Amino acid sequence: MTNTIRAEVITIGDEILFGQITDTNTAWLGTELTNIGVRVVRKTSVGDQADAILQSLHEAHERADIIIITGGLGPTKDDITKKILCTYFGVGMVRNETALALVTGFFEKRGRAMTDLNRSQADLPANAVYMQNDWGTAPGMWFEYAKADEPKRVYVSLPGVPFEMKHLMTNRILPRLTQHFETPIIKHKMIRTVGIGESFLAERIEAWEDGLPAHIKLAYLPSFGGVKLRLTATGDDNTLLDRELAEQVDKVMPLITKSVYGFDGDELETVIGQLLRDKGVGGKPLTLGVAESCTGGYVSAQITKVPGASAYFWGSVVSYSNSVKEKVLGVKPETLQQFGAVSEETIREMAEGVRTALGTDVGIATSGIAGPDGGTPDKPVGTIWIACATSQRTTTRLLKLGQYRDQNIQLTTNYLLNMLREELLNEL
Amino acid sequence: MTNTIRAEVITIGDEILFGQITDTNTAWLGTELTNIGVRVVRKTSVGDQADAILQSLHEAHERADIIIITGGLGPTKDDITKKILCTYFGVGMVRNETALALVTGFFEKRGRAMTDLNRSQADLPANAVYMQNDWGTAPGMWFEYAKADEPKRVYVSLPGVPFEMKHLMTNRILPRLTQHFETPIIKHKMIRTVGIGESFLAERIEAWEDGLPAHIKLAYLPSFGGVKLRLTATGDDNTLLDRELAEQVDKVMPLITKSVYGFDGDELETVIGQLLRDKGVGGKPLTLGVAESCTGGYVSAQITKVPGASAYFWGSVVSYSNSVKEKVLGVKPETLQQFGAVSEETIREMAEGVRTALGTDVGIATSGIAGPDGGTPDKPVGTIWIACATSQRTTTRLLKLGQYRDQNIQLTTNYLLNMLREELLNEL
Repeated sequence: MTNTIRAEVITIGDEILFGQITDTNTAWLGTELTNIGVRVVRKTSVGDQADAILQSLHEAHERADIIIITGGLGPTKDDITKKILCTYFGVGMVRNETALALVTGFFEKRGRAMTDLNRSQADLPANAVYMQNDWGTAPGMWFEYAKADEPKRVYVSLPGVPFEMKHLMTNRILPRLTQHFETPIIKHKMIRTVGIGESFLAERIEAWEDGLPAHIKLAYLPSFGGVKLRLTATGDDNTLLDRELAEQVDKVMPLITKSVYGFDGDELETVIGQLLRDKGVGGKPLTLGVAESCTGGYVSAQITKVPGASAYFWGSVVSYSNSVKEKVLGVKPETLQQFGAVSEETIREMAEGVRTALGTDVGIATSGIAGPDGGTPDKPVGTIWIACATSQRTTTRLLKLGQYRDQNIQLTTNYLLNMLREELLNEL
Repeated sequence: MTNTIRAEVITIGDEILFGQITDTNTAWLGTELTNIGVRVVRKTSVGDQADAILQSLHEAHERADIIIITGGLGPTKDDITKKILCTYFGVGMVRNETALALVTGFFEKRGRAMTDLNRSQADLPANAVYMQNDWGTAPGMWFEYAKADEPKRVYVSLPGVPFEMKHLMTNRILPRLTQHFETPIIKHKMIRTVGIGESFLAERIEAWEDGLPAHIKLAYLPSFGGVKLRLTATGDDNTLLDRELAEQVDKVMPLITKSVYGFDGDELETVIGQLLRDKGVGGKPLTLGVAESCTGGYVSAQITKVPGASAYFWGSVVSYSNSVKEKVLGVKPETLQQFGAVSEETIREMAEGVRTALGTDVGIATSGIAGPDGGTPDKPVGTIWIACATSQRTTTRLLKLGQYRDQNIQLTTNYLLNMLREELLNEL
């Protein structure tokens, strides 16, 4: 069996430490490195101070075979990664002509004047292998470096802008890493559940979990969307690992079938898209319309995240005001008057109304008090109705959620999408 | 001047290293710690392995006065933080009766059976000060610990579930930290720009930047929404720092006025909400309706993120299918036929149509090809029209964006909200 290849990801920038941006790069890097069989052992964020960055490089050198550094490559004065890499490697800075041509071309193409700051982006530490960034002027760099008589570590420096970083990794760095290292095989299988709590899930599958072989690990990943079960298998036989994971899934599924909406990268919105396609007649998917009040467009935005959603998603009406509920969705004024916008009567008319207004097979709807204001003793913040109307029937449900607006919007969206999933499975 | 109080945040969980969740906790923690004058010097993520966690604790002890640990407190078998803290501090585990009562009550209230796993959540390392979690069964813990004759460090262990962590920090930990340490004052001022690139901004304000005093630092934070300029001032006189920051803002603003949409926590959608209120007549805000095609609900979801948006936002029509464009928005079939859904003619009718259909003062609209499919040689992926219709005029704009769906949706939303901002400023 091959050795484990270990990676550490270092992100540079005061803005990450001070919480002024949320770092999404390292999650993406974690996934990609794991997929090529590299084990990420540490993620480190340091500020824009030379000594902190140098210390993190020295520490990572002791722990990892691959050190990926993102950030600190912009043209402005607070970005100092390149200078520190020169110090760390004990080399000087050299202007790279290929990089300069790229930066020049980038500005010519956009008809914009180039500054000295921009030109300095073509200066690289002398030991860098230049990795071309097709999407920006900050360079990618590859280094191989040993401090003593030891295997050389690979250092990779990338821009912090997510799509530039991703392109460099995908097109230049990952292929080069795969060539450079002989990696063991790490396989993941994710089982995605909804509507069951972590500890109940754990009790239900305890005997199975205790019987897992040592090279297959289980983790519980709870979130607003539900609890995900992640199986991780390590070995050196691709086919064998796949078979072992499949066998474990076959064993556990009978215990939790009802709670499972998908596997691996499946999202509720993708699963729903597939169900709408599957339940259609004559090759035509069932069509979906959405009426949103308290979720304000979030349900629609989730559904349309899926490329090709236009095949089944016809549209939405975000009816924040009662006049839009009446004018566009056809909710009766007397219903709003008598029961209020947040009521079973109104949600029923909204779901049925959007079906009619848009002419779709299925209509789903939300109406509630997302907060922080608008609650009453009768209907406190977190009182939310959801509904799903099909040709067969209209189902409604009352949710009693918490006091936090963002959380209420996210949870309501998940409950509604799961309600739609269940209706599609059961009724149509 | 008081000493700098340094903090390190350690997040525990293979799921973070493997990229299966995006860590949003540390950004939030960074903001909160910065706000009480604590300097975050490092963020570290380690996996669920005892040796890695122990190593990170030892390292953090050398660097920081406060060590905040999140994650690894769930009831399931992969969560091992408490055991490792026992090893690290050299203490045993003790069942905490207050914690047990809380866990028991939590389950009784929900009428659910309690498991041994749940009960074990009340077991704490013997040196822990119990910090009550009002939102879940995993405990918060506070430790004070020195290895030798040195100042004691404060260790805080928190659950990884974001809203539980946030409540514990806000209600119990931050007040206690403020009492425990005498912190220097760190003040931030953020200037938010849109529509100008990082290097152009840098050239324009270079002379001002060079003249900044040593205790005021500038950082450029670029994102899809625009470039933010962050000023950070350190000192011990609150009033003086505020005045110095205000003076610097006064100096730089004349150089960049047109590109600035707000300060500090201002978001485009908040600024727009305020403008709609300001531009209204007789105390009534101007009202807004949205017609979304390629953005699929994302524009509406951004606008309704703002609590109280219902005062000016009446609703949206997400017209993914042409039939909804015709039926609900009143786009003429011959316009769609002759020019297509992605055209200046259609976007104009959409923006004007949603104004009429919802009866609002202002209508804004998007229509384009978000990708990855649907492009043609004439209209490649990334071809997107936006429009803003008011009582005065209808403005349209063609965007030529890239090939990535998510990015196109986000960028289009920002361009549209900024177009609305400019129209509100200029025309109404």
